[in-house]
Amino acid sequence: MKVKTKKRAYKATNLPPGTMKYKGKKQSLKTVIDIINYSNQAFTKIDCNDVEDGFNFEGNQQVTWININGLNNLKDIEKLGTHYNLHPLTLEDIVNTSQRPKFEEFQNYFFVVFKMLYFDDKDILQYEHLSMVVGPDYVLTFQEADGDVFDNLRNRIEVAKGRIRSQGADYLMYAILDAIVDNYFTVIEAVGDKIEDLESNIFETQTNNSTTPNQIQDLKQEVLKIRRSILPLREVINRLEKSDNTIINVKSQSYIRDLYDHIIQVNESIDLYREMVWGLMDMYMTIISNKMNEVMKVLTIIATIFIPLTFIAGIYGMNFTNMPELQSENGYFILLGAMFVLFIIMLIYFRNKKWL
Amino acid sequence: MKVKTKKRAYKATNLPPGTMKYKGKKQSLKTVIDIINYSNQAFTKIDCNDVEDGFNFEGNQQVTWININGLNNLKDIEKLGTHYNLHPLTLEDIVNTSQRPKFEEFQNYFFVVFKMLYFDDKDILQYEHLSMVVGPDYVLTFQEADGDVFDNLRNRIEVAKGRIRSQGADYLMYAILDAIVDNYFTVIEAVGDKIEDLESNIFETQTNNSTTPNQIQDLKQEVLKIRRSILPLREVINRLEKSDNTIINVKSQSYIRDLYDHIIQVNESIDLYREMVWGLMDMYMTIISNKMNEVMKVLTIIATIFIPLTFIAGIYGMNFTNMPELQSENGYFILLGAMFVLFIIMLIYFRNKKWL
Amino acid sequence: MKVKTKKRAYKATNLPPGTMKYKGKKQSLKTVIDIINYSNQAFTKIDCNDVEDGFNFEGNQQVTWININGLNNLKDIEKLGTHYNLHPLTLEDIVNTSQRPKFEEFQNYFFVVFKMLYFDDKDILQYEHLSMVVGPDYVLTFQEADGDVFDNLRNRIEVAKGRIRSQGADYLMYAILDAIVDNYFTVIEAVGDKIEDLESNIFETQTNNSTTPNQIQDLKQEVLKIRRSILPLREVINRLEKSDNTIINVKSQSYIRDLYDHIIQVNESIDLYREMVWGLMDMYMTIISNKMNEVMKVLTIIATIFIPLTFIAGIYGMNFTNMPELQSENGYFILLGAMFVLFIIMLIYFRNKKWL
Amino acid sequence: MKVKTKKRAYKATNLPPGTMKYKGKKQSLKTVIDIINYSNQAFTKIDCNDVEDGFNFEGNQQVTWININGLNNLKDIEKLGTHYNLHPLTLEDIVNTSQRPKFEEFQNYFFVVFKMLYFDDKDILQYEHLSMVVGPDYVLTFQEADGDVFDNLRNRIEVAKGRIRSQGADYLMYAILDAIVDNYFTVIEAVGDKIEDLESNIFETQTNNSTTPNQIQDLKQEVLKIRRSILPLREVINRLEKSDNTIINVKSQSYIRDLYDHIIQVNESIDLYREMVWGLMDMYMTIISNKMNEVMKVLTIIATIFIPLTFIAGIYGMNFTNMPELQSENGYFILLGAMFVLFIIMLIYFRNKKWL
Amino acid sequence: MKVKTKKRAYKATNLPPGTMKYKGKKQSLKTVIDIINYSNQAFTKIDCNDVEDGFNFEGNQQVTWININGLNNLKDIEKLGTHYNLHPLTLEDIVNTSQRPKFEEFQNYFFVVFKMLYFDDKDILQYEHLSMVVGPDYVLTFQEADGDVFDNLRNRIEVAKGRIRSQGADYLMYAILDAIVDNYFTVIEAVGDKIEDLESNIFETQTNNSTTPNQIQDLKQEVLKIRRSILPLREVINRLEKSDNTIINVKSQSYIRDLYDHIIQVNESIDLYREMVWGLMDMYMTIISNKMNEVMKVLTIIATIFIPLTFIAGIYGMNFTNMPELQSENGYFILLGAMFVLFIIMLIYFRNKKWL
Repeated sequence: MKVKTKKRAYKATNLPPGTMKYKGKKQSLKTVIDIINYSNQAFTKIDCNDVEDGFNFEGNQQVTWININGLNNLKDIEKLGTHYNLHPLTLEDIVNTSQRPKFEEFQNYFFVVFKMLYFDDKDILQYEHLSMVVGPDYVLTFQEADGDVFDNLRNRIEVAKGRIRSQGADYLMYAILDAIVDNYFTVIEAVGDKIEDLESNIFETQTNNSTTPNQIQDLKQEVLKIRRSILPLREVINRLEKSDNTIINVKSQSYIRDLYDHIIQVNESIDLYREMVWGLMDMYMTIISNKMNEVMKVLTIIATIFIPLTFIAGIYGMNFTNMPELQSENGYFILLGAMFVLFIIMLIYFRNKKWL
Repeated sequence: MKVKTKKRAYKATNLPPGTMKYKGKKQSLKTVIDIINYSNQAFTKIDCNDVEDGFNFEGNQQVTWININGLNNLKDIEKLGTHYNLHPLTLEDIVNTSQRPKFEEFQNYFFVVFKMLYFDDKDILQYEHLSMVVGPDYVLTFQEADGDVFDNLRNRIEVAKGRIRSQGADYLMYAILDAIVDNYFTVIEAVGDKIEDLESNIFETQTNNSTTPNQIQDLKQEVLKIRRSILPLREVINRLEKSDNTIINVKSQSYIRDLYDHIIQVNESIDLYREMVWGLMDMYMTIISNKMNEVMKVLTIIATIFIPLTFIAGIYGMNFTNMPELQSENGYFILLGAMFVLFIIMLIYFRNKKWL
Repeated sequence: MKVKTKKRAYKATNLPPGTMKYKGKKQSLKTVIDIINYSNQAFTKIDCNDVEDGFNFEGNQQVTWININGLNNLKDIEKLGTHYNLHPLTLEDIVNTSQRPKFEEFQNYFFVVFKMLYFDDKDILQYEHLSMVVGPDYVLTFQEADGDVFDNLRNRIEVAKGRIRSQGADYLMYAILDAIVDNYFTVIEAVGDKIEDLESNIFETQTNNSTTPNQIQDLKQEVLKIRRSILPLREVINRLEKSDNTIINVKSQSYIRDLYDHIIQVNESIDLYREMVWGLMDMYMTIISNKMNEVMKVLTIIATIFIPLTFIAGIYGMNFTNMPELQSENGYFILLGAMFVLFIIMLIYFRNKKWL
Repeated sequence: MKVKTKKRAYKATNLPPGTMKYKGKKQSLKTVIDIINYSNQAFTKIDCNDVEDGFNFEGNQQVTWININGLNNLKDIEKLGTHYNLHPLTLEDIVNTSQRPKFEEFQNYFFVVFKMLYFDDKDILQYEHLSMVVGPDYVLTFQEADGDVFDNLRNRIEVAKGRIRSQGADYLMYAILDAIVDNYFTVIEAVGDKIEDLESNIFETQTNNSTTPNQIQDLKQEVLKIRRSILPLREVINRLEKSDNTIINVKSQSYIRDLYDHIIQVNESIDLYREMVWGLMDMYMTIISNKMNEVMKVLTIIATIFIPLTFIAGIYGMNFTNMPELQSENGYFILLGAMFVLFIIMLIYFRNKKWL
Repeated sequence: MKVKTKKRAYKATNLPPGTMKYKGKKQSLKTVIDIINYSNQAFTKIDCNDVEDGFNFEGNQQVTWININGLNNLKDIEKLGTHYNLHPLTLEDIVNTSQRPKFEEFQNYFFVVFKMLYFDDKDILQYEHLSMVVGPDYVLTFQEADGDVFDNLRNRIEVAKGRIRSQGADYLMYAILDAIVDNYFTVIEAVGDKIEDLESNIFETQTNNSTTPNQIQDLKQEVLKIRRSILPLREVINRLEKSDNTIINVKSQSYIRDLYDHIIQVNESIDLYREMVWGLMDMYMTIISNKMNEVMKVLTIIATIFIPLTFIAGIYGMNFTNMPELQSENGYFILLGAMFVLFIIMLIYFRNKKWL
């Protein structure tokens, strides 16, 4: 057991509130910025290194989506913060990867924090911290790493599929959240597959796989952690639905309500899987007990049949001078017969007890 | 264990919101449309292939019920959508079989999604996605497959039994929901029978039925899934009861309140069965433990009686030259007697311990 | 396992809403009607077969209590329904024995459904469906079977004990509900006795009573079912307390508040018993494990002592020609002594391990 | 199993509501009345037998505290009821010892019911039913038995310590409730000690103490019952805090808020202990399993070592005429050596398995 | 079992409410006072023994932070109480170390109680009682012992880092609470490490570590106690956020909202760890069962193979005069061969059963 002394408990970096500090794992990642600007007629897409390239588009009745991959380049984020007049706490939360999902309404923008989930190459669940700032005609998204679930959405904007090109920034926000919730469905389905694999594993494998409790415990924690990442989004979307800010168009409200339906469905699925994982441990215990019962029965049958027989053989192996049976002509054969009868009686007894 | 890579997690079809896409199992099913139009005096019933046949009845102070079996014929559903001015998200949800039960109030109609449950030929619980659009003088129902629980209701309309012919579309909606809730009662009763079968099975069967934990786990999941299908309907009917939309007649409200009572009762039953199924696992564990105890006792009694006796026999089977007892005239018989006494003492001991 | 096919799931009798249909067990019971009419001065009691005899008393500033035992005589109930202008759904619920406890406020009357509980001759919990209609100057009660808990109340009315004769129909309703809640206390106490019996049974009986898990499971279900019958009454009385209908006199409100207190107390008791029953299963499991531990210890002690000794005896039972010990004069006695020492060492070892 | 017949369930004494009936255990107790009357300047204390002695003090701007020990003297309580104009249901609840804690606000007084807890000489938890009536210038307390936790408070009034002498009846009520809540802390601490005793007992005692599950179950029920007695007081004090009755002085409100804090703290402690007691059963089970594992290992090691060896000895104890090894000069010693090697191999095997 | 008599339950010191009494463990600690006074331009820091030194700074548009370490010097606290006009109950709670976290709003100040957590040198969780009084231009903090988590904050004030120097007392209060919540994160992380250590311990160690259930139980209680200390702070900060007192500047509200987010995150973490600790016990049980299964299999395999073989050897060790096999030339070798075949058959049987 490692010793955590009082010292350690007091060593925590107590930064002043509102200080930007990226403490995530992707420290060395180069920040990449891509900007999409579109209206009903126009569409521009820029991959750039300087976030100021995105400021030219303003004031054209168009929607600007600035996406930043990589959170260790604080300068660009600060530039955006100054340009769009963001609160210091918003900037702090953008780079604080341990911030839980939340929704905040400021005077001139919405701020939404959420998580993207995926399984990495080793089938281990990974979290990516995402945040989004939504203003009247712009959406800013901040991702911890490159690679996301929005390619489909970008493509839809580019080819003007669906109604997205004719809608405002609020619809883009909705579309981004919708893609994230779709991502959750995929992740949860993968967890569901894992649970079913493990469940059939428990039943089918005859060998006592001693890593199974470990796997169940891992799965439990995975489900708990997914739940913790997803559950707050319900409140986020609920507050978004109830917001009467003018950023959100009346027409978009039915879409957000639909989104709320989906996030509830995600939460119900995760709760269902949670109950199923919990049940797995019980089931595993029962199966172990069943197997032990089997083992005990085999032992008991063998011992109960042969221990008395061995005792009888032992009797006639004694060296008393006066043991009349030993001299009997057919004593040996009579005894063998008697032993066989006893053996049969025992078998009948166990069959009656339904142990055979 | 199958490996779910990041790729897979990102492959999800990210369709634009409001896109109709039927992803259910009944892909090849031919869509069948039946239309019922009735008023206090008139009754017409049409089985047709073109949904436009139902548009002629409008404007006659009559109720039109258009029922569509099969969701892969998107054209007909779109025609209805255009004719009755349905929201794109409504159309999406009609064919989206994974949509959970919900209630939505639009300006000109109600939209209700729910599930029909039944056990198929293999006694496996099946779900059918149903949705219903209710307007001032029409009801549209969309079913994933043919076969439903409304035949009785159709018959009542035809023979003008009960008050249904003299009521509006809101009463038809109520009657449809009532039939569905009745369907739930039947399904839940069947689950209750299953639980009782399994429970008496656990007690009566002496053989260690090792599939029992599997059956319990299956039953658990069945109950959880039914619960997940039925529970949201409570909120649906609650919101229906509280709606002040003019589509719902004041007189129908007491019927809807009654429906709410029934759905609460369904939910209570399912919760009761849930607790019972959970208890089954505990009970099964206890019974296994009891049986193992039995087995251990048999083994212990046999071993405890015969191992010492065998030891004594072994003593007198030794080949020491100087063992006075062996030469004794009655040594053998005295020993047999002593062994018998020991045997009796053991039996008394076990009887005192209440093991026999 | 019985197979429930799709057919069965669809066979449910889908009666039109508002249809009266008695489906309970007391089909053959003859309906008995008794009518009590009282005011501060007058008291009349009639046992009759025709419910119309009760209609004469109206308009005299008196309270009329019409009690009907047996629900299969639908005509009388319909007569009452017509006379007192009851809603069709009320009539349906009066005879629908599977209706859960509820409270409904109609314009001219209250409608209350509740359950009477009792243990039958075989100590099995039975439910009797009761419903009550309360108007400005009448109370109608509908019981599924004869025999009830109101004899005391009838007597109090007759001998004018307590304040009941000087009060209105609302106080009679209160007195009836009070008698029912008193009945619940009695039933719950009986359940409490059962739990304590079973608990001391589990501890005292040394024999492995293998029916115990069954009894616990039965008791669990009994508690769950009682809870389901009683819990809704809390909501019923709460809504009664909050009703501002003129049927309820202001002075009666403190009595209803008192009733609410009692029903909460009933619910708390049932929750307490619920936790106790749940604990019983754990306790039983622990005791089984303890006993198995005992059994295993006996086996282990005997085997651990005698198996090595038997082995030693086996050594000297071998027939090697050259075994010097066998020729030794005192070899046999030395060996017996050594065995005895080993035996003592074993005993000391087990005593140190606290197994003896 | 005792049989509870329908008869018994119907035998419950169905008294008219508002009837005073003391059914507690202290039937023979002589009622003792002590009256304290105080103002800022004056203090009078009377031990008397007639409650009317307390009526003289009224109208002097003083606070009168009438305390009655023993509830079987209904006359005195009725006198008080008449004098202070108490509702019949209040009088009923004062002597009804099974009444749960509650708060009722009447026009001219508050009525509070609560429980005093203590451990009796046999360390068994006892409950004493207390009730309190608080008017503008008087406090009436009714105790089931003599002996209470108010001596300190009486003393404080007498020696004019603290602010109590300068405050009204509402402050006295607060001081009484405060003493009761302090009493709860003491009782809960005692329960906490019991839990810790039992916990260390479970770990330290090597002997299989088979009464432990019983003790845990008892402790569980004790905690549940304490919780049931204390939990409602939270609601009582909450309603007291929110009451806008003029009996409560504005200045006293911060004291009542403080009391509310304390009762929440009491409830949190009891919930913590509850979780701890529940954990004890799990821990006990685990320890039993651990011990059984130990026992099984000893048995297995002994049996696995000696059963094969005994078999080998058995081989050479056979009486075949042609067994070449038996004639070998050193056969016996070679065999002994081989057995020893086998013995060592077994030990190494078990050490590798970490069983030794 | 120690006996707690009625006497003990009644011995509790029943002090008058509002009496200051320090009952914590740090009785002998010398009280140390440090005072910080700052404005945008000025900064003064005093370590003193007399609290009145801090009263000179008032009225200068500056913020005064008086911090008192050690609660047994009641005089200084009373002086502060008089000077800042604090309620007697506030003073009582400042020194009452068993007071749970709470928030109280008085007319002229806020009062906040909370706990600081740390692990001491023996890795045991310790609690320090903290309270804070916040007025328009002053903050008073009262700590039970020296050593705290505010050094960083003090430094920030001194070097004028962040925005703290330009803000009022409300921001200082926020900064203090923020440091405390950061402290909670550190403590919870340490608990998380402990849980993971124990979890990998359970899996990796092959030896049956019998102290593990004890460690799990300890960890359970640690988590429960941390939860109890932290959970109420959520309510505290929530009420702080909703307060409309002028002490709190509008600009500070977004900071307090952020704090609320963090405390929710702390609570979610502790709930997650709680579920994980609960899971540990189950996992441990499963692993014990698995090991016992292993042990039983070894025993069963050995016994099942050798007991029948020993019986056969016993047969031919009998001393019957007429046993034809014994005279057979190759009888011995044939028997050995037969035994070997039986041995192989047994091995194949166990391999088929997947026990090997």
